[in-house]
Parts: sequence; C-alpha cells; structure tokens
Amino acid sequence: MLFEKINITDENFELKTDMYVRVESGKISSITEQRPEDYEGECYNGEGKLLMPGLVNSHSHLPMTLTRGYGDGLTLQSWLFDKIFPFEDQMTDEDAYIGTMLGIAEMLASGTTSVSDMYMFGESVCRAALESGIKCNFSRCISSGSETPLEELKGFKEAMAVKEKYDGANNGRIRVDYSIHAEYTSSEYTIGKFADYVNAHDARVSTHISETKTEHEECKARHNGLTPVQYFEKMGIFGTGKAFGAHCVWIEPEDREIMAKNGVMIAHCPSSNMKLGSGLADVKAMLDAGITVGIGTDGAGSNNNLDMFEEMHLAALTASVKNYDAAAFSAKDVLKMATVNGALMQGRTDCGLIKEGYCADLVVVDLEKPHLTPKNDIVSSLVYSAGGQDVVLTMVDGEVLYRDGKFTTIDIDEIMKLADKAVCKIKSRL
Amino acid sequence: MLFEKINITDENFELKTDMYVRVESGKISSITEQRPEDYEGECYNGEGKLLMPGLVNSHSHLPMTLTRGYGDGLTLQSWLFDKIFPFEDQMTDEDAYIGTMLGIAEMLASGTTSVSDMYMFGESVCRAALESGIKCNFSRCISSGSETPLEELKGFKEAMAVKEKYDGANNGRIRVDYSIHAEYTSSEYTIGKFADYVNAHDARVSTHISETKTEHEECKARHNGLTPVQYFEKMGIFGTGKAFGAHCVWIEPEDREIMAKNGVMIAHCPSSNMKLGSGLADVKAMLDAGITVGIGTDGAGSNNNLDMFEEMHLAALTASVKNYDAAAFSAKDVLKMATVNGALMQGRTDCGLIKEGYCADLVVVDLEKPHLTPKNDIVSSLVYSAGGQDVVLTMVDGEVLYRDGKFTTIDIDEIMKLADKAVCKIKSRL
Repeated sequence: MLFEKINITDENFELKTDMYVRVESGKISSITEQRPEDYEGECYNGEGKLLMPGLVNSHSHLPMTLTRGYGDGLTLQSWLFDKIFPFEDQMTDEDAYIGTMLGIAEMLASGTTSVSDMYMFGESVCRAALESGIKCNFSRCISSGSETPLEELKGFKEAMAVKEKYDGANNGRIRVDYSIHAEYTSSEYTIGKFADYVNAHDARVSTHISETKTEHEECKARHNGLTPVQYFEKMGIFGTGKAFGAHCVWIEPEDREIMAKNGVMIAHCPSSNMKLGSGLADVKAMLDAGITVGIGTDGAGSNNNLDMFEEMHLAALTASVKNYDAAAFSAKDVLKMATVNGALMQGRTDCGLIKEGYCADLVVVDLEKPHLTPKNDIVSSLVYSAGGQDVVLTMVDGEVLYRDGKFTTIDIDEIMKLADKAVCKIKSRL
Repeated sequence: MLFEKINITDENFELKTDMYVRVESGKISSITEQRPEDYEGECYNGEGKLLMPGLVNSHSHLPMTLTRGYGDGLTLQSWLFDKIFPFEDQMTDEDAYIGTMLGIAEMLASGTTSVSDMYMFGESVCRAALESGIKCNFSRCISSGSETPLEELKGFKEAMAVKEKYDGANNGRIRVDYSIHAEYTSSEYTIGKFADYVNAHDARVSTHISETKTEHEECKARHNGLTPVQYFEKMGIFGTGKAFGAHCVWIEPEDREIMAKNGVMIAHCPSSNMKLGSGLADVKAMLDAGITVGIGTDGAGSNNNLDMFEEMHLAALTASVKNYDAAAFSAKDVLKMATVNGALMQGRTDCGLIKEGYCADLVVVDLEKPHLTPKNDIVSSLVYSAGGQDVVLTMVDGEVLYRDGKFTTIDIDEIMKLADKAVCKIKSRL
C-alpha cells in the first residue's frame, strides 16, 4: 500500500503534510515528500486525511465487554461483589471468546492496533486475537492467598498452557507474558515464588498497583508501612526490568523513584480511575520522575468503552485539572503515551511510530469533519477533539483489518448477536 | 412522523421498548405501545434504535469554534491574553457567523437540539441559529469597568438591537436573554445598573461564577470576604429568580444555599473546567442543595469539541472521582441534567422530555454498534459508552435537521471551507 498526499505525525509527533508513506512486507519501507517512482501497487488517496501510528491499549480485560453497563451506579464494593464476580463465575470459554472478539472489533474500529490484556480465559482471548489479526500481549492473572506451590495453581497451569500454544503466534503479533494480579490478592508465598519464576525466565510482568486508597493503605498496614510498590520491589517482582503496573493512583514520591530506578512502567487508566471513584493519578509527576507511561482503557465494565481517543482526551484533561495547570501536558506527550510508550511496555521496540523500518501498525483519521475544523492544530485535535469514530482505516503489520466501517476478519453482526445471547444466558443463571 | 417499534427514554428516563411516538405540528402528540390506527404519514423504523430527548448545551460561545486547538498546552493566562483575545479582536461579523454555523452543525450531528450561548456578535449568532433551525437562547455579554451609563455601552446597545430583532424568532426557537460576563470584569456601578435593568424587565440572566480559584479569592479580597455568589446576591443580580451561573467550581456551602434559595441554576462544564485546570466542581453537593444543574460544553477553544455525549460521560466520571464514590450519580441524573434541566434553564418548560404535549426536540441513537453491545443497560450506555457519532437523526420542533450524516439546513462542506479560510485570514493579521 502507498498512502499518497497524506498528513502524518512524524516520529516526534510533529505534523507533516502531503507525504507519501509506503508499506511493504508489513513494514513502513519509506516516508517521502515525493511519490516513489517505481511504485505500482495499491494506492490510498490521503487528501483530507491523517495517518498516525496505531494506538496501543496498555491495560484491558477484554472478555469484560460482556459486563458493559452491568451494575453502573453502584459503589465499587457492591459492583464487584454483587455484580461482576458472580457474572464472571458464570462465563464459559466461549462467552469469553465472544466478549473478546467484540472488544477487539470496537478497538480496531477506533484505531487501536495492539492491546495488553490481563485476565483469565487465556485460550479464548488469544484465539480471538489470533483470528482478528490484532497485536496482543496477553497475561493470565495469577492470585493465590495460600501456600500452594505455583505449579499446582489452576491459573499458573493455564498461563503455561497459553504461553506454550500462543506465544509468538501470528508472526509475533501474539505474545504471552505473566501477571500477578495485585499485592492484596496473593500471599507472600505466592508473590515470592512468582518473582522467582519470572526472574529465572527474564519475563515481562504486569500487575495492578495502588488503584484505590484502601488498597494502598491496607498494604502499608500489612507490611510495616511498605506501599505496594515498595513491597513488590522487596519481593523481587521488578527484578527483570520489564514490569508494569496498572493504575498507580495512590503511589508516593518514593514509589516513583523506585519505579524509575527499576524501569517499572505504568498503564494510566483515567476513565476507570474516575468512574470507580479511585482518584486522579499524578501522571505529570510520573513523567517528571522519568517513568514510561502508557494509556489503557481497563475493562469495558468500568469505562464503559474501549475508545483510546477518549482515553487520550481524558489523560490530557486529568493532568491539567490534577495540577490546576492547562499547560501540564502537551498533546504530543499524550500521543506518545498512547502509541510508542504502550508499545515499549509490550517489548515491541519497532512499533508505535511512523518511522522507516517500523511495523506498519497504522491508522487513518478523516479530518473533514465539523468537530475537526478549522485545522488550527491537527495534532492537538487528535487528542482534544477527535473520537474513535473518526478512524476510517486500521492496519496491523500492513494488513488492513478495518476500513470504512467494515471489518476484514470479524463478522461483527454475528458477534454482536452472540454477545447479547451470551449475556442473556449468563444472567439467567444468576 | 411516526417513530415505530423504537426504544425510548420515558419522562423519568426509564427505558421503554417497542414504542410508537407520533409527532404532529412540532409536538409529541402520542406515545403508545400500539401503532396509532389512523396514522398515514411518514414512518421511521425504530428497530435497533433509541429515541431520546434532544440534548441542551447549557453554556457555549459558538463563534469560538474558530479558535479550536489554537493555543492548546499554554497556561490559562497565556492562552487568553496571547492567543484568544488577539484572535477575537480580528474576528468580523461574518467570521462569527461562520464559526457559529460550524458549531451548530457539530451540535446537531451529535444530538444537541438547543443551546444557551453567551458571546459578542449577537447578530451573527442569532442569524446562524435562525437559518439552521436549532433552538438558541442567546445573551450578549456585558462587561464594563467604568461608570459609563448602561445605555451608552456598546455591548448593551448590541444586546438591545439583537433582542429587538430576534427575540421569539422562528416560532420562539430563538430567545434573547441577558448576560453580565462576571464579577471581575465589571464595576460595581455597571453590575448594579445591570441588576436594576433585568429586575425591571423580569429577564433571564446568565453569568460566569467562580470558575477559577483566583477569580473566587480575588472577589473575596475586593468585597470584604463576599464570594461572587454572595456579591451578586447583594447586588440584586439574582432578583428575578431566572439566573444561571456557568462553571461554579469554587462555590462554597453558603453559596449553594443562596443559589438554591434564589432559584439560581448552574451550567456545569466538566471538560472546560478540566482542560483549563480550573478544578472539579462539586455537582453532587449542588444537587443535594436542590440546585437545578445543566451541562455545557463551554467554547470549543477550551474543550475542544461540542459533543454533549462526551460532556455527559465526563459529568458522571467527575462526580465519581470528586466524591471517591462510584455511586455518586446515576446515569439518569446525568441525562436529566443534559436535557430537561438545560431546557428549564432556558425557560422552556415544554422541552427536554419524551412526553405527550412536549416539543418534538428529539434524537435517534443507533444502538447496533460494538461499543453499545451487549445491551445490559441502554440508558447507562447513553452516558458511559455512547458518543455524538452514534446519533443518526436530530429533530427540532418536529423538523428533521440532521439525518444519516446529512444536514437539511446547512451546507456543511461550504461552511468547513469558509471556516478554514476565515482562520487563515485572521491569523494573517496577528
């Protein structure tokens, strides 16, 4: 494919106009001001459009799309214990597959080309990711309050099976990592053994950190004043330098130093942190401390959509209001978080930028819309004015997966029908 | 028009399915479970769709769409003084007309049927509103730090001229009200004379109140500890019981009591309050105090779009995070604010609900989208999952103004071209 006469965000997220971007063998092979003379393949007319790197959703629980809108308006405790956990208990592998495919469709249609997912049902999530063509780093959450050996835990066995079957699948679009759910859901024994395992295997790890004040304070009470970050450091969870924590709303200045020192990254989830009443994470302080921050939607149950454009808008707005400073972030800071930083958190060092040699994970935005007019600052418009609905093409490794409202790998009408059916069945059992 | 077999939000914002809603002479004439037998006119197939009241944007500055994305990432002071004010100084009546029409197009396409606008360029705003068919309460902002008699102020003369020409136009779709910009932009003399005038004319009044902490604290320092609300009350601005203040981020408990007692309403602008770093308004406390709260986008320069669906989402999210309570608001609370409350703030007591006899200001949302699936709670989805792009029909007083991407009264391609041209011209003079 050759994108012709198109606006692009360059590798520094500066706007360049009337460019030619050539995609060959899944990679961006050239970015030029003149049309490559030898090119004879498919062309894409880029007039009135913008080409940007695909968005990377740094934290999600994809099968939870089935819980979208289920239990809204309840307190966090009541939502979790009265609604979500009983619902999840009734979900089958097939339900999880349908929910995942629905979530992937929503993400592809709104410009997300890669996702870091953490959940149960690894077989279902990876199968849907594989079939859809999206990039996905999946990690099967481990939690155990007992002293059962790691190898005997159901979750760990599943994690191993999924890793064996899917890690590296679809030419590396699928990767399987590791996850310890959170400090408060596992015993010191389990966390210690998990740390030993991931350090021995030099593995990528994700976890939830200091999402709510209660979680943060209870950890300190349990562990002689150690915060979740300090406790995880002591337990060796950050040993590989390839860890990231989701949320991090209540982390303290010393936590940020520890994270920066250990190369621990953060998945910032502004919608979810607001909707669940968790708080406003201090992302400016994270960036100032030198931490790599990506942006995630969290599960659809606490958002309630998977639109990374809205998430970028919220990342910008929450930074401004948290600091009482309209200049807290630039739009470029936010775009960087939602693309190349997210890719780095997945260990994908050749994704997230429009740059020669990088993977052709690309998104086309239609700029000819009232809400994107006038074009005072197109880069800023992507963060402050645009929405997922402005995406007209989504490509992963050079393969078009969504174009002008149509999916190339997903039967969306069928999946939507199956999702409603699955929910009816689950609810009938509650 | 007869909407057939359609989901609706009833007058309590409860979902009703498979309903028949008949529109005659601009009003909702019947809402029934059975098809009206005698009906022979145009039908709208409502399967897979939802009919809701048109959204009311309670606070905007429409010509400022031309400043969308202009000066993003600057501090509030630098944005205003280095960017916005010099830009506005170069705007002509025609520019303001184009900017307004662009804003109206964006609003109609995203489900807004009525807007409370406060700005200069009243002739331009009202002309665009009239031509487009939207409902609009316009008020020409007054501010004067001098002791010039009210009648000699340029703004007041314009306000009078616009009122004379447009108040009640288009069968009352256009209304012209009054506005004093804010406490800090006028002298005690001007505010006093303005209060006398509006009280003598029993007029509807809008103003900005306690948007930033600086504004709030400086008012107290100037006026013996009186907050803007307390000062306005003393000056008689709230005398008619038809006033509303925009923002109200920093109001105090006593302010809320005063507002409730005087029937002063509030236009809540969550995006703008966040983007400009002003703060999170305590809307739960406002509602608990018995104040009528609507939702507004503010100008496109500080948002940067006019999508009331995103504004509803943010109203819900900010309430939860402000109170650290996921149960702070229900989706119904938010829908009520964005519809019937906004209409009440405009003095339109027959708008904002799907109810027999009410104006047919209606919006159709397409529910057959991945991000609105599954249908666990459709009413909740409108607030937490939907976006303006899900709107497929917008009707004001029974007249279809937008349907399936097409405007019936606006040449959108021409307006977008003119908007870009106007901005180039303005910038060439800066």
